[in-house]
This record gives sequence, structure tokens and C-alpha cells, in this order.
Amino acid sequence: MDFALPQELAALEARTVAFVRDEVLPFEADPRRTAHGPSEDLRRELVEKARAAGLLSPHVTREWGGLGLSHLGKAVVFEAAGYSMLGPVALNIAAPDEGNMHLLAEVASPAQNARFLAPMAAGETRSCFLMTEPHPGAGADPSLMKTTAVKEGDHFIVNGVKWLITGAEGAACAIVMARTFVDGRDVGATMFLTDLPAEGFRITRALDTLDSSFTGGHAEVALENLRIPATDVLGAVGEGFRYAQARLVPARLTHCMRWLGAARRAHDIATDYASRREAFGGTLLSHEGVGFMLADNEIDLHTTRLAIRHAAWLLDQGQKANVESSMVKVFASEAIFRVVDRSLQVLGGLGMTRDTEVERIFRDVRGFRIYDGPSEVHRWNIARRLARTATAAAVPAGRAA
Amino acid sequence: MDFALPQELAALEARTVAFVRDEVLPFEADPRRTAHGPSEDLRRELVEKARAAGLLSPHVTREWGGLGLSHLGKAVVFEAAGYSMLGPVALNIAAPDEGNMHLLAEVASPAQNARFLAPMAAGETRSCFLMTEPHPGAGADPSLMKTTAVKEGDHFIVNGVKWLITGAEGAACAIVMARTFVDGRDVGATMFLTDLPAEGFRITRALDTLDSSFTGGHAEVALENLRIPATDVLGAVGEGFRYAQARLVPARLTHCMRWLGAARRAHDIATDYASRREAFGGTLLSHEGVGFMLADNEIDLHTTRLAIRHAAWLLDQGQKANVESSMVKVFASEAIFRVVDRSLQVLGGLGMTRDTEVERIFRDVRGFRIYDGPSEVHRWNIARRLARTATAAAVPAGRAA
Amino acid sequence: MDFALPQELAALEARTVAFVRDEVLPFEADPRRTAHGPSEDLRRELVEKARAAGLLSPHVTREWGGLGLSHLGKAVVFEAAGYSMLGPVALNIAAPDEGNMHLLAEVASPAQNARFLAPMAAGETRSCFLMTEPHPGAGADPSLMKTTAVKEGDHFIVNGVKWLITGAEGAACAIVMARTFVDGRDVGATMFLTDLPAEGFRITRALDTLDSSFTGGHAEVALENLRIPATDVLGAVGEGFRYAQARLVPARLTHCMRWLGAARRAHDIATDYASRREAFGGTLLSHEGVGFMLADNEIDLHTTRLAIRHAAWLLDQGQKANVESSMVKVFASEAIFRVVDRSLQVLGGLGMTRDTEVERIFRDVRGFRIYDGPSEVHRWNIARRLARTATAAAVPAGRAA
Amino acid sequence: MDFALPQELAALEARTVAFVRDEVLPFEADPRRTAHGPSEDLRRELVEKARAAGLLSPHVTREWGGLGLSHLGKAVVFEAAGYSMLGPVALNIAAPDEGNMHLLAEVASPAQNARFLAPMAAGETRSCFLMTEPHPGAGADPSLMKTTAVKEGDHFIVNGVKWLITGAEGAACAIVMARTFVDGRDVGATMFLTDLPAEGFRITRALDTLDSSFTGGHAEVALENLRIPATDVLGAVGEGFRYAQARLVPARLTHCMRWLGAARRAHDIATDYASRREAFGGTLLSHEGVGFMLADNEIDLHTTRLAIRHAAWLLDQGQKANVESSMVKVFASEAIFRVVDRSLQVLGGLGMTRDTEVERIFRDVRGFRIYDGPSEVHRWNIARRLARTATAAAVPAGRAA
Repeated sequence: MDFALPQELAALEARTVAFVRDEVLPFEADPRRTAHGPSEDLRRELVEKARAAGLLSPHVTREWGGLGLSHLGKAVVFEAAGYSMLGPVALNIAAPDEGNMHLLAEVASPAQNARFLAPMAAGETRSCFLMTEPHPGAGADPSLMKTTAVKEGDHFIVNGVKWLITGAEGAACAIVMARTFVDGRDVGATMFLTDLPAEGFRITRALDTLDSSFTGGHAEVALENLRIPATDVLGAVGEGFRYAQARLVPARLTHCMRWLGAARRAHDIATDYASRREAFGGTLLSHEGVGFMLADNEIDLHTTRLAIRHAAWLLDQGQKANVESSMVKVFASEAIFRVVDRSLQVLGGLGMTRDTEVERIFRDVRGFRIYDGPSEVHRWNIARRLARTATAAAVPAGRAA
Repeated sequence: MDFALPQELAALEARTVAFVRDEVLPFEADPRRTAHGPSEDLRRELVEKARAAGLLSPHVTREWGGLGLSHLGKAVVFEAAGYSMLGPVALNIAAPDEGNMHLLAEVASPAQNARFLAPMAAGETRSCFLMTEPHPGAGADPSLMKTTAVKEGDHFIVNGVKWLITGAEGAACAIVMARTFVDGRDVGATMFLTDLPAEGFRITRALDTLDSSFTGGHAEVALENLRIPATDVLGAVGEGFRYAQARLVPARLTHCMRWLGAARRAHDIATDYASRREAFGGTLLSHEGVGFMLADNEIDLHTTRLAIRHAAWLLDQGQKANVESSMVKVFASEAIFRVVDRSLQVLGGLGMTRDTEVERIFRDVRGFRIYDGPSEVHRWNIARRLARTATAAAVPAGRAA
Repeated sequence: MDFALPQELAALEARTVAFVRDEVLPFEADPRRTAHGPSEDLRRELVEKARAAGLLSPHVTREWGGLGLSHLGKAVVFEAAGYSMLGPVALNIAAPDEGNMHLLAEVASPAQNARFLAPMAAGETRSCFLMTEPHPGAGADPSLMKTTAVKEGDHFIVNGVKWLITGAEGAACAIVMARTFVDGRDVGATMFLTDLPAEGFRITRALDTLDSSFTGGHAEVALENLRIPATDVLGAVGEGFRYAQARLVPARLTHCMRWLGAARRAHDIATDYASRREAFGGTLLSHEGVGFMLADNEIDLHTTRLAIRHAAWLLDQGQKANVESSMVKVFASEAIFRVVDRSLQVLGGLGMTRDTEVERIFRDVRGFRIYDGPSEVHRWNIARRLARTATAAAVPAGRAA
Repeated sequence: MDFALPQELAALEARTVAFVRDEVLPFEADPRRTAHGPSEDLRRELVEKARAAGLLSPHVTREWGGLGLSHLGKAVVFEAAGYSMLGPVALNIAAPDEGNMHLLAEVASPAQNARFLAPMAAGETRSCFLMTEPHPGAGADPSLMKTTAVKEGDHFIVNGVKWLITGAEGAACAIVMARTFVDGRDVGATMFLTDLPAEGFRITRALDTLDSSFTGGHAEVALENLRIPATDVLGAVGEGFRYAQARLVPARLTHCMRWLGAARRAHDIATDYASRREAFGGTLLSHEGVGFMLADNEIDLHTTRLAIRHAAWLLDQGQKANVESSMVKVFASEAIFRVVDRSLQVLGGLGMTRDTEVERIFRDVRGFRIYDGPSEVHRWNIARRLARTATAAAVPAGRAA
């Protein structure tokens, strides 16, 4: 057992830290950060910075121009990048693109990858992922999916409404998930690739949301007889849910990694303020009421980091880590929210203003307890494994039983 | 002991509930709700609705055109009004005007009230209250106040920077608090009244903040040789902190009252959704993971209401209720935040969007754990009373001692 | 609305406070407090003290020698009595007798009351209540009841195993609940009265438990062809669950009342210690880390008291308060546990010893989150009402829906 | 970075697991487990089992007959041993002996080790550690120490009162800490070794405590002119606090390790029960209200294990890990308490009884949030480091500052 980072990775971390501090933080005051995320223009400017620094798309294999990071490598670099909400944008590792690239690399054909993955990996294009639907469609429970894809000759005709589609505005391509019918038979969910814009793919509105850091914001999309050639099926017909699961496990970990960096940022801002701000006879930090909050932050950040790296290591060992990633998702999303909430509290009135980055982090991080499975779904997942394994438990419940 | 509402009050509550439902809720989709609060135009339109319904300024004495509600009466009516974030705007009971009117009625001279209170009570004008300052000035600890008022002849010359000044933009008058010097001697803090706009009173910027429901938003204000005639001192010179305390105790309760209504609204939205939304084989509400969250909401709402009404009753009995109001402030602000946070969680992705009012309530309510004294300052206040009274305790710590 | 206690009740409270302080506290060091509760001998000594003070059985109607307290009256007096774990023993208001007396007064025939209630009300005898059974029998879910009563002529023959039967050891009578069969037909659960000792009623063991303050402890009881004449049915055959519910609602409130007193005691001991104990440059209480814990105690105690009194008042108004009592049970049991846990923490190592009463209160109060329905069952109950009423909710979930 | 256990260690873990399951668990029903801990007789019987299994004193160096485990090795083996409260007794790794042996190995002279450490390492004798004193003496704040050691010729004369002295009853030797005076000058605290029984060392009483698993219980000890030759000073005069710190950091980690095993045990018992117990239409585990509690247990256990192993690894790297061990102590003690508390709750009434081991674990684990520094002291320690390092923070608090 060894908790030390490999030297090479530690060096990459240090470079990322320096890059974020020197090249990214100055952009945080940029007015191109809109309520619907950083503008495409700003994104491209940041991407060029990362490219120049040799840090672009570090998660992508070297074949496609990245650094070929392992999951553990991502844990380290993504946290460092997440220290600024703009860091993942710069490094091209923000959601949903990062997960989409991962999925394509796993499932897509070489031709599809040349067409879709290559420009994404190069930071030239963005993508979106169309799974969730408005009530009463698919949300946390994907089995409720209402969108359909009907095979007609060598095409599929897709119809439905999707929403909370992050990055749809401005995306160059989309992965669309739909319940698929072949010869009138429901063959399960399938993932489809499509270039954008496309006929039959209409953004009906940009959603106003609590968060504001995803490029392209979140949209509602109407799919109206969207025609997709059978060659643009991603992987195999009917395997959509399986791929979604394969996408989700690492994707929920990379969310944890990025957010950990953001939480650390909030904590640093609060700590710095608390060490300078005087009230009631001493610095805020000298008051136990504040000092204990920041101590709890330290504990939450430390344990979250360990849990993330452990799960990443499991993936690197080839394990599925389905339940483990649920555990990390619940723990990290709740611990990180507590950290950011306490940081805002320590800042007092200042925390309510956009004068520090904490206000934005607070708004943005709230969704993390919901997306990629709300805490409740993950707890349910963990409990189900317990139910499966409990019968094998070696220890009787009590001597009296 | 009697927990029943007087019939008259119950009737007024019912009228307020109906008014909010029928007249106010339709305005929630109004685009005049900006990031810096409802526009003055929207405010006036809402005020006219309340005037027509006979519900305007219910907290103001009948002498000044109100309904002369007791503190308990406010507890009931303000909660009903708070069910919409626009309800308090309509009834003219939003912060900071409500607290300012209360303070004026308590302290101002008849002439001052005719000039300042009368138009405010009529819903014609708004006001602001200038106490807090940016670091390193007065925040939770008012003793750090940096703004000064220097007596020159029969005027005071005020200089300083104030911030987080709610409603400054568009206000017709201000209460300004400053450390006062007479003949070079520091005579303590004083409150001053001034009409706006005024020379020497300059809004340097509108703060971007997490919340967005206070008319006029929050501003930073530069006071640059603001001249105030001695006749516009509010109350007596040097009594500013005492008045501030007198303003704060009831003002923190009225915050609790309004926010309780808003929390109930969030809870109702979440409950309604959870009772209709299907997932994993049943409604969300049928899942204990969700049902228990909503049950906890019910408990938090119920106990918060009792605590608020009890403290209001104490004030009606003529008690100062300083520590009791601290207890209610901590309990209510934290319970209400939990309620709203759970409501958002139950809504899932929908909760992150402005498609329901919960997103706004979540943003706006976060500040409540900070303003009018952060939870930490109130806990400190409660602990201090314990320290004062502990020596009188009748029971020894242990038989062994 | 009026939060003031009637003068008469306030006077009774003061008398109870003085009685506990002067007459009961000295017995806390009495070695007759065993791991299975105070001895019968000690109980009788305490009862005579209460009798002499005119405070015995205050909940019982004047007809049967009590003070005929309303539910609100109980809320006040029981809290005062609960300040010592021996107070309820002295006043004859401890569980399960207090609830049993209440049930008898509601349901029993005059003859039964003369035989069973009268000596209990006089403090001469104790009783027990046999409902819960070991796994896989009736616990939180009474529908799993395995004990049977089979009608044979004018008798019922009862067989089964009951456990966690508080006070069985030394009880003079029992209320036994059993699934009843008449002419081979299951007619539902019935309550039976029986004098003790009785043939066919055998205490198989005294349970070792975390708590130690119930007279007679908790036993496992084998019912082996226990014969009960049909005239000793309590109320009507088949109505057992309905009576159990009628017993439980007020009984769970009286638990809250007594425990509130005990929690206040723990808090007072901790506060006294914290105000005298020096560490790290000041009293413990002067450290925010400790002061904030005690402040939270104050808040929990205050809100719990309000919630209890409100629910008691509802019962006094003739309401069933089924869900309200669930809310109070959850809130009170969890808040009270927090208070006691924090008090122990403030005492540090001293808190782990029996040198203060807190150690015992901590052990005893833990069960309160379980008996009379664990928190989970009550949350479920609250959620079910929400599900029933949600369809009537006036406010749509969102404008987009 | 590598989270895999070395094969050798995994094998040792498996052997420990099997040993506890096969050899130790059967003793849990042994009546020699008294309210003041397992009897010496029982301890010796268990020690012989461990000796036969080759698992005795695994933390001791091979020189003294142990297995020479690293800190990480201890993390693994101690958790496995802690699965039964009797496991650490059997392996001779229970507090305070385990920490005392560690301290002796670090500080004592060869002669002292031959005399004191050798028989302890062999499991033949037990020891005690006399630091804490009753109010107003040394508790969490050791600077309040009242016990004195006055040099007279080549002896020290020790006087004072110590309490909460674990294992004093039956100990063969003691480490005594006292404020030391040489030639009338206070030269700081010193640690002294003494054989027991000794004149001037008197156990004045056995404390009744919430917990009951430490052999010898907890005692109050009067030191009355206890004469200790200067050759029995442990290490150097005046270095007592430094050694105490050196003892505490690893000792608090070994507490975490053992308690983690105990918490896992409680969780397994609860999970097993929840998977078999039916209520309200399904197993308890199938109810989210219960399943989520057990899921949270899984998360707490997992993250606690990671945090412990990481801190142990730090010590193995030669780091002091003062603040890191504080973080682990707070996190582990609170997470473990939650796990045990939830486990008890899941068991319902059964959890309140000694029919499962959970009742005892619950009582015993409560002290863990207090001894070796209460959570509050550790949070303070963490906050102090933040205060020291905050000035070096790279990121300004806000753009507006």
C-alpha cells in the first residue's frame, strides 16, 4: 500500500496548479462568463492556453492527442484543474464532453472516432448527451424513457423531448439515447451519434438554472423526426443502457474530482478571509465557531480526496466499482457541498456576493447532489448490494436468535 | 395556554392566503423580476393590488394607515404573505422597509414620521438602512464601524463606505449609521435620516449577489461629505447601537416569518411533484427516501412556526426577548434552509431550473443564515447568557464533585 | 393565542420542581437503583414522599385519587418530574403504568377499574403491558403478532412469547394483547387483563439492557395456556389494535414530557460544569466549541417544549393528533438525544462515569428513539399523510409542468 | 499510488479474521465479562489462544517477541481484531497496554524494557498510564496537572490524585506523570515507571462507567508519597509532555483501528438482522428508511478505513502526522459512533438488549469521541494549523478585496 503519487504525476499536478493559477484565474472576472456558461469564444481562448501549456485533453489517449491519463491520473489533474471553475473548460475536461470522449473511445468505431472524437479531443468542438427527459420521461430512472427511435430502412427516425441537455447550444455533435423499435419490436435503448445542427433537432429553449458554469448551458431539445443513418448507431442497437452505465461510473468520479478542486478553492478563499478579518476581538479564524467550520472543511476535503483516488485506482485495476463509485458519489457530493456551504458562511455577507468565486461555486455545486444520480438513488444502489450479500454474512445477529 | 388563533386573525390570514394565491402568484413569471430584484414598476403594481385588497402595510399602526398588527399578528400574516417571494413586496412588509418603518414608529419625531414614515407606510416610497461596511469595517461586529459623522455647527458631515445596502437603488430616504464625533470627542454611534438622492450619497455599484428578491438589490454606497442637519438625527445622538438592537430583534423575527412562508411554498411544490412523479415503481413520495425528507420538512416547518409565534408573543408581552429571538433566528434559518434544500433535492433536475420557484427560494434563503447576525453570532449570544446564569444553577455537577 | 401557563398550573409546576429538588434528588445515589431499575422497596419509599407532598398520580382523575391533569397539565408536571429519573417513579407517572392507567380509565369497566386501576392509582401496585414479541413476532409492526388467544367456553387460552415487557417483574397485573380466535375464526387482536402472578404466565428471563431506570426492568415472558375469563377482556374482543393506538398517542407524548425533564437535567449539569471547569485559558463555557454545543441544547430544549405543549393542547381540544404526535415523537426523541449526547461530551471523561447522572440519562434515553415507534415508523406515518393530502394541494409544481 | 495490501499482510489479516471468528467470538457470552471489564482470568485465557495462533503482541518488535508490524500493518490487523471487543484483549493490543508498550520501546532504557516491557509483550502482565486527574486537574488540557514529583536525594516523591486510570486494578506496573520539582524549581512534567503494587499507590475506588470492555476498568488512584528512584524515570526528567505527545499520536490511531472493527461488527449484525426481519410488507433492509442507514454505514466504514490507513502510512514514512492524526481521530470517532448508533437503531428493541453485542459496543464507543482528546480539542488543533499556514495561501479572498 502506497499513498505517494508517482513523481511524474506529481510533476504534472504541479504544472496544472501553476497553469490554473497563472493562466486561468485571471479569466474569472471575464464578462464572457454568462448565466448560461462561458461563451464559446472564451472557451476557445482558454483551450489555446492549455494547448500551449501542453495540458489539453489530458484524459484522452495519446493516439488522439491527449496525455493518456489513468483514472488515478485524472483524479490528480482534474482536482487541480477544478480549482477554477474555468480550469476544466481550459483543459477540455468539463462535462459532458469529457464523459462523451471517454464513451466514444470505448465504444465508437474508428470511423466514428475520426469524425466525432478527433475534433473534440483537439478542443475544436463540443458535444452533448441526450438522455434525460422532462416529466413524465426518463430522469433518475432511465426506464421511463419516452423518446423513440423507429427503424425505417437503413435509418432510425427519432422523436421525443429531451431536457437538461448540457452544452446543447453550440455543440457540434450529439449522442442521443432513445427506446428503439425494429420491425415494431422494442429492442431496448440505443445510442445514436449525430452532427449538429441537424434537421429535426431543435433547441426549444435555454433553461434558466441555478448553475452557470457549463459551456452552452442547459437546453430543452425537441427531436422531431430526426433521421439518423444506421451507421451512426454508437456501438450496438439495444445496448444503450449498458453503455450509459459504462459512461456513468467514470463520469461520476470525474465530477467528484473537478468539484473537489472547486471546494478546495472555496475553502482557501474562506480561510484566507478568516485569517485576516477581525471581529469580536480577534480574527474570525481565532474564533472556534469559525475555526471548527474550517477544520471540518479540512476533514471533508481530505477524506473526499482519499475516497476518490481509491475508486479511481479500482477502475485502473479493471474493476467495475459500481457500488464503490456510488459510495464516493454520495460521500463526495455531500461533503463538498458542506465545504462550500461552510465557506460561504464564513465569508458572511461577502459570501453572498459575486466579489468572490464562492457565490458561483455554491450555486454550481448544488446540482452535484442531483446529477449522475441523486444521493437517494446511490444509497438505494448501495443498500441493494447489501441485500444481495447479507445472506452470506458470517456472523449471527445475536446469541439469543 | 392557548394555541388557537383569534378568529379575527384567522380571517385575516385566510384573506392573505387568498390574495397571494389569486393576485400575487401570477406575477411570479413576470420578467420584471430581475437579478437585482423586482423592478420599482412591478413593486408599485403589486402594492396597488394589496391596497385594493385592504392588506397594505398591515404592520403599521392604524394612525399611519396600517392594520396595527401585533407581533403575533405579523407572525401569521407575514408567513402567509411569504408564500410568494413577491407577497411581502405587495404587502409592503419586505426588508428593509418593514424594519425601518418599525424603527421610525418607535424612535422618530412626529415631524420625521410625517416626512419619512407616512409615504413609506402608504407604499409610495422605499427606504434603505446603512449600517454594514466592507472589510475591515462593521459587519457582524458593529463595533468595527469606520463611517464617521463629525458635528460642524448644526450639521453632521458623514464620510465612509457602506455596502450590502439593500434597496439603496431607488430608495427615497435612508437611515445612516455612523460613529459620531462632537467637539472632537467620540460620542458613540448615531442614526441619521436623509432624503435621497442626496449630495454626498453615491451608489458606487450594484452588487451581484446570490439572492435576487429584494427590490433595489444590494448596493455599495460611498458617503462623501454627506451633510445632515442636526434635526435629522433619528432619536438621540450616540444611541445608534441601542436603536439598532431595538430594530434588529423584531426585524429578525419578521425575516423568520416571511421565510417560513417561502419554505412552505418550496415544500408544497416538492410534495406536489413527489406525489405525481413516478420512478422505480411508484411515486417519489411512496419511496421512503423521498417521503422521509418531506416528513422532515413537515417537522421543521411545524416547529419553526411554533418557535416564531412564541417569540412574537413574548414581544407582545413587552419582553425584550433578546436571547429568545437569537434562538429563533438560529433555529428558523437553519430549519428553513434544510426544508428548501430538501425540496430542491426532491425535485431533482427540475429543482435546478427556474421552472419552479424553488430555485429562487434556494438562492435567496441562503443569506438568511447570515444577515441579521450569522448563526455563529447568535449561538455566541445564547452561550453568553448561559455563562451569566450558570452560577445561579441549583444542581451540582456531580455527586463526586 | 397565549403561551402563558395558567397560574394554578404554574404553582403546581413550582411545587413539583421543589419536590424533585428536595425529596427526590437525594435518592439518586441510592444503591437500590439496580441495573434492572429501582427496587420495589425504593419505589414505595418514593411514592410515599409524593403522596405526602400531594403530588401522587397527578394524571389520574380525581375520582380515582389523582389531580385530574389535562394533557397540557401533564406536559408541565411530567417535565418537572422527569428532571430526576426517579421523579416519575415517585409521582407514579412512569411508563408503562402511566399509559396503562390512562387506557384503563378510557376502556375498562367500573368493576375492572375498581380491581385494577384503583390500587395502581394509589401507587400500591404496578402493571405491565404485553404487546411486543421477539423476532419474528410483533415489533414496530403489530400485524406480525404471533401470540394467540383461543376462546374455550367462557375463557380465552393464551399462548405465545412476549419480550421487552417493561415492569413485568413485580407487577400485580398485566394487559396482554393477543390475536384472538373465536370458533376457529380470527377476530382480530384483543386486550386481556390478568392478575399476577398467574398460572401460565412465566417470566423466562430478565433482559440485560442499555437502560436501567424502569422499575422491574424488561422481561421475556412465556404465556403457556394462560386462562383468562371472558369477563377480563379489556373493552371489546377484536378491538385491541384500536385501543393500542388510543394508548400510544398520549403515551408517546408523556414519554416526551418526562425525557424533556431528563434532558434539561443533563444540560444543567453540563452547563454548571462548563462554567466552572477551566481549560486552555478559560472556562469551558467561554470556549465557543463548548458554548455553541450548550446553545444548541438551549434551542433543542426550547423547541421541544413548545412542540410537546402544542400537541398536548391538541389532545385537550379533542383532536386525535395522530400525525402531530408522530412529529413530536420524532423531533423530541432526536432533539433530546442530541442534548444528552452533547451534555456528555461537554463533561468529557467525567461524562463517562456514574459520578454524574448524565451517564445514566444517556443510556436510558437511547431507547426513546425506538420505543413507541422508532423514528422511521413515524416518518413513514407523516409521509403517508402527505401522500393522502398532496392531491388536494393548491399550487402547481411549476410553470413549465 | 497503490491501495492493495501486501500479500503477506493480507494473509495475516485473514488469519486474524479466522482467529477472531473461531476462537474469540465464543467468549463473548462469557460471564467473566464484568461491568469493569473482562476478568484477568479471562484475559489470560484469551492471550493463550492468541499465543497458540501466533498472533500475540503483533505490534511489538520481533526482538521482544512480536510480529513487528508497521503502522499500516497495525491498521489492518487491529481492525480485524477489533471485530470482537475481546479481540484486542486476546492479541494483547488493547489500550492502554498497547500504547504503553509502544512508548517504552521508544523511550525506555534496555534495563527498563527487560523489566517492564518484556513481561507485557509476553502477555503476562498489564500496565496503566496515570496522566488524567479529576477537576480541577489535568484533563484535555494537560497543563493543569496538579500531581507533583519532588526530588529528594536520588528519589522522587510523588503526590496527587489521578483518575480515569484504565487498567489500574490488576496492573503490574504504571507510568506516572507528574509536574516535577528539582531543588524547588519546576522543571516540567516527567514520566516515572513503578512496579505495582507499591506503597503510596492506592486505588481509592473503581469508577462505574458507561463502558465496560477495558480489562481492569477505570480507577481513581491516590498517590501518597510514592517514592520512585531516579533510575526509574522514563526517558529524561522534564520531557513528559513531549513523550505524551509521542505516545498519543499513534495511540489515537490504534484506537481508530480497533473501533473500526467494532463498528463493522455492529453493522454486520444490523445488516444480517435487517435482511431477515420482516415488517410492513418486506424485510427491514428492503425499506429505504433502513437501507439508507445501512448504506451510510458502508460509506462511513469505507472512508474511515481509508483515512486510518493513510495516516498509518504517513507515520510509516517517518512523518509526525500531528494534524493528520487529529483529522482522523475526529472523523473516525464521529463516523464510527454514527455507524454504531444506526446499527442499534436498525435493531430496534433488540438493539437495546445485551442479546447482541451492539449494546455493549454502543456504550463503549461513546467514550472514543472523548478520550485521547475530545473532538473539540482536535478541531482546535486543526484550526490552529490553518491559522499558521493561512498567511502563506496563494489565492486572494476576492477580486474586490
